[in-house]
Amino acid sequence: MGLAIFGKQDGVKGMERYPGRLRLPEDLHNLSIAELEELAEVIRRHMIETVADRGGHLAPNLGVVELALALHSTFKSPRDRIIWDVGHQSYPHKLLTGRWERFHTLRRHGGLSGFPKVTESVHDPFGTGHSSTSISAALGLAEARDQRGERAKIIAVIGDGALTGGMAFEALNHAGHLKSDLMVVLNDNKMSIGTNVGALSAYLDRIRSDPAYSRLKEEFEQRARRVPLVGHRVVDSAEKIRKGLKSLIKPGLLFEELGLAYFGPVDGHNIAALKSAFRQTARVKGPVLLHVLTEKGKGYRYAEAAPERFHGIGPFDLQNGLPRGKKSGLSYTGAFGQTLVRLAAGDSRIVALTAAMTAGTGLKEFASRYPQRFYDVGIAEQHAVGMAAALAAGGLRPVVAIYSTFLQRAYDQIIHDVCMQNLPVIFAVDRAGIVGEDGETHQGIFDLSYLRSAPQMALMAPRHEDELQHLLYTAVQRGAGPAALRYPRDKGEGVGLTEPRLLPWGRGEVLREGDDLLIIAAGPCANAALAAAERLAGVGVEAAVINARFIKPLDEELLLKWARRCGRILTVEENSIVGGFGSAVLEALARNNLALPVKLLGIEDAFVEQGPRDLLLSLCGLDGEGIFKAALTFSSAGISEGVI
Amino acid sequence: MGLAIFGKQDGVKGMERYPGRLRLPEDLHNLSIAELEELAEVIRRHMIETVADRGGHLAPNLGVVELALALHSTFKSPRDRIIWDVGHQSYPHKLLTGRWERFHTLRRHGGLSGFPKVTESVHDPFGTGHSSTSISAALGLAEARDQRGERAKIIAVIGDGALTGGMAFEALNHAGHLKSDLMVVLNDNKMSIGTNVGALSAYLDRIRSDPAYSRLKEEFEQRARRVPLVGHRVVDSAEKIRKGLKSLIKPGLLFEELGLAYFGPVDGHNIAALKSAFRQTARVKGPVLLHVLTEKGKGYRYAEAAPERFHGIGPFDLQNGLPRGKKSGLSYTGAFGQTLVRLAAGDSRIVALTAAMTAGTGLKEFASRYPQRFYDVGIAEQHAVGMAAALAAGGLRPVVAIYSTFLQRAYDQIIHDVCMQNLPVIFAVDRAGIVGEDGETHQGIFDLSYLRSAPQMALMAPRHEDELQHLLYTAVQRGAGPAALRYPRDKGEGVGLTEPRLLPWGRGEVLREGDDLLIIAAGPCANAALAAAERLAGVGVEAAVINARFIKPLDEELLLKWARRCGRILTVEENSIVGGFGSAVLEALARNNLALPVKLLGIEDAFVEQGPRDLLLSLCGLDGEGIFKAALTFSSAGISEGVI
Repeated sequence: MGLAIFGKQDGVKGMERYPGRLRLPEDLHNLSIAELEELAEVIRRHMIETVADRGGHLAPNLGVVELALALHSTFKSPRDRIIWDVGHQSYPHKLLTGRWERFHTLRRHGGLSGFPKVTESVHDPFGTGHSSTSISAALGLAEARDQRGERAKIIAVIGDGALTGGMAFEALNHAGHLKSDLMVVLNDNKMSIGTNVGALSAYLDRIRSDPAYSRLKEEFEQRARRVPLVGHRVVDSAEKIRKGLKSLIKPGLLFEELGLAYFGPVDGHNIAALKSAFRQTARVKGPVLLHVLTEKGKGYRYAEAAPERFHGIGPFDLQNGLPRGKKSGLSYTGAFGQTLVRLAAGDSRIVALTAAMTAGTGLKEFASRYPQRFYDVGIAEQHAVGMAAALAAGGLRPVVAIYSTFLQRAYDQIIHDVCMQNLPVIFAVDRAGIVGEDGETHQGIFDLSYLRSAPQMALMAPRHEDELQHLLYTAVQRGAGPAALRYPRDKGEGVGLTEPRLLPWGRGEVLREGDDLLIIAAGPCANAALAAAERLAGVGVEAAVINARFIKPLDEELLLKWARRCGRILTVEENSIVGGFGSAVLEALARNNLALPVKLLGIEDAFVEQGPRDLLLSLCGLDGEGIFKAALTFSSAGISEGVI
Repeated sequence: MGLAIFGKQDGVKGMERYPGRLRLPEDLHNLSIAELEELAEVIRRHMIETVADRGGHLAPNLGVVELALALHSTFKSPRDRIIWDVGHQSYPHKLLTGRWERFHTLRRHGGLSGFPKVTESVHDPFGTGHSSTSISAALGLAEARDQRGERAKIIAVIGDGALTGGMAFEALNHAGHLKSDLMVVLNDNKMSIGTNVGALSAYLDRIRSDPAYSRLKEEFEQRARRVPLVGHRVVDSAEKIRKGLKSLIKPGLLFEELGLAYFGPVDGHNIAALKSAFRQTARVKGPVLLHVLTEKGKGYRYAEAAPERFHGIGPFDLQNGLPRGKKSGLSYTGAFGQTLVRLAAGDSRIVALTAAMTAGTGLKEFASRYPQRFYDVGIAEQHAVGMAAALAAGGLRPVVAIYSTFLQRAYDQIIHDVCMQNLPVIFAVDRAGIVGEDGETHQGIFDLSYLRSAPQMALMAPRHEDELQHLLYTAVQRGAGPAALRYPRDKGEGVGLTEPRLLPWGRGEVLREGDDLLIIAAGPCANAALAAAERLAGVGVEAAVINARFIKPLDEELLLKWARRCGRILTVEENSIVGGFGSAVLEALARNNLALPVKLLGIEDAFVEQGPRDLLLSLCGLDGEGIFKAALTFSSAGISEGVI
């Protein structure tokens, strides 16, 4: 039987031999349920060992092993297309679709992506990384299939957390309207990254816990009683409702109302039940929602006990689940969190918001100290920013902490709700710049460009954790108009936190004087610039180094003074050079009728692949070495001066 | 009685005298229902006459006259705060809150805004313009109220169309979770700008039309029968359901499931019923949704008959509702629509998408000729772009037509779903640049900045309607990667449409030769630049003029050649100068080690108020006169050259 196939008798060895014995995913259709169940355990062990070794998303993947097996043993990828929303739960899918042998390269530079990627496999029909895109993707693929007269099952697997993103609702609403044949598998694990928030989550809880909806029933009756006029119909029929309620409240009515046929809930760790449900529901015409209950972290006791910690995790000890070689020292994120707690103690107007990134943005302590002043809005960046605007309009000082890449979702709200009304909302833009192993979908390399284009927005980048603290304090104290601070996913520079103090608004800082070249940098790359300047001095080039601090308003006075003195400028930023900090410098020079040679150092106009942050910074030429080389070449380069 | 107050006996004259007789909104609380009803008619006539005279949004405002009266005669603004979602239906609110006498300045330069605006009145607690923001705003104001221990009712009025925007759902989900005291008035008129799409709309239809939900009931039973395994619970209880259905299916269960207490539907033109409903539901603790049924265009027969045409309209003849002095000639929008129909005839891969802007983007003919290849996704820009990405991934050639300002909503999807996967999605960015009377919230002045920062994106701006056609054809034929065309809300240049032909990719066009100054322009402002150059020749300055056509990839070869020849460059664009076309030119010069004086002409880093498009262009210095003056000053200005 199955045991023979996987060589259970020799444990890990059998697992290692595994990929050679089956053609995947095709052969999954020939396996028995028992064999699939055995394979589930092999996959689990392989994932746990791999992630323990090198970090990655663990808990979400442990939760979908049976789901992936049931999908691939029921449907036929790549003809049938499976889209994993967010994509951090695609490891079992990858293992089952020809990537077993490369799985040890996961999240490495040049290795397998931690997310589905069309360029990686024909079994990844649509790349994901950001949340809540899969239903739109499924609908588009379904309509393209129908337009072209093809046959294929289109399946979106979306978590209950991702379902709260507005884009998912927009797509559900449209799918229910178009009536296209597609399947939405709702992977309900009661979590997004942390515990889920939102009424939808509570709704799903009710389905999970109580088929009779006793609580809803009570609400029904209470409401019916206390609002006689408008609710009179309800009062009239309350008796009937009471009698009929048990039969009448069908789980999933909410989805049915939106035009999807609802089925479930189904045990997401029961392969036989899943396969049966897939087979049945795949025959239904029109859009179907299959509600599957899974447990995040399933099968690894430490992940089951602490699924949030094991959501995305660095290397850990297999035997006890404890982190190995964790970074010491205060991170930028930590400095933000500590500072905000400190400032909030003295200013009751301060409230904090995030969008399902409480731990990731360093807001855990704030949330526990000031639960009434803390809003985790769920995966809903648009709403987070819109609500923050209104909190500011209502007299508070909201601080919105969202990763740079996810804040892209709220670009319109930043312009339309915050900046147009010049409201004092502070944006804590975490994970700005190179984020590392999460790769293309998560790099925060556009915020300087998109935030800079928003009128009224002030834009700051501290070069160390203490400066972050001062800038945050300065922005809160100022309280006039919107301001954003951007900082990387990295440990700090080890300078520690002093007393928060006011920094002069819109002023940069001269880190080093020099006459041959001006290097002006935004953020921690100012430190690398300083190191480069010291090396340049060794070869006879005296570079002035300015820490911009403010990208907007830019310290034009300081820039012009040193630009005139040095005669040529190298700008350094951890952002796309298109429309970013370097552009701001160019625009300032043009505005002041100053024509000088300028070189922009930053991220070229392309997406940046995965890899260790240090390696990627080096590849982008943004470490000390890269800046040194660029500066050296630039300072000796011939500059064409036109025919002025 | 009421008649005396408004002087019905002398008709229009009484209406004109009206504002002097009441303190608004306070005195509304003292009026009888009959008086309020009379006032409703006065307001209607005033709005119809004003909009007939100068254009504006008519149908949405005619639909909410009674709603605004009932709100302001029940609640106490500005203590209580009313947020009008989208805001194009705020005219009755404006008339009732101290702006009667200035109403004739509506949408004029320096006059009343067509949208709620905090700087205009204390009765506008939160500005609107883009759709689906009001529930987030209400939740933020409600939480700020509670944090500060204040008392106030917070009311969001949102249309059924706006409710399909994902941001509204995100906010509903969060409101249902937080349980804050606030009221959402669902203004259900069955339309967004045009006919509504989406399952939610169908759901509301069911509430409107059939309290017994007979159709849903049938679906219930059918589904229960055809899916025996998963649906077995339903089969078991089908009999009970059948008996209990009439009583059990409460209207609004969908909202109840999301944690809002649902009440309604209520006749939105019955002031007494509305006031009663407001009084009752205002006593309910937690978030309440009141479902109000209104008729768009109510009270003006031509608007009732054609609410879409009267949604936003230019001046018209009161007596017959026909447009007065409409612009002749083909618009850019029209050229786009005609061309797409033409191209679609020869290429079955072409599909078109829009987000509730079918008429506005010129897609009416496409929609009627190719209904199967046309997708109006509702007010859901994020989903529109995500779905377009998947349609492209599925082998089609989607063209997404969305206004520049609304496309901001999909910035993340453009980067993450389209550009990162290098999918051949074409963006038709209508209303790019100055839009005119709609003002700040609708100006399309950021797209060059935000689209330029997206890797892989090609970015084009035609200088006349025929070039638009060629560029669209060129982009479709190329079919490699994403491309965006941006063009203004304006009539074309009158050049007519020739045969569509391929234009060289990434190449600009020399419109005029000259040695003293290079003027390089993006879009129709190239024509103004050319006119300016002719005038400059008259004063001895020979300017070369380049029509960029491609903002990205920029024709660097052409730029460098003429930049070197002319020695100084004036860039011209109808976009923010922050990160826009001028920045692209600066970056290209820097990349090529060319240090030259450059002046950027475009929209300064600020929001642009309302007014006629020509006037605003002139005020921004973007007409022939402005370009002439800027060029003249610049060509004779001293340029600091640093110490190269």
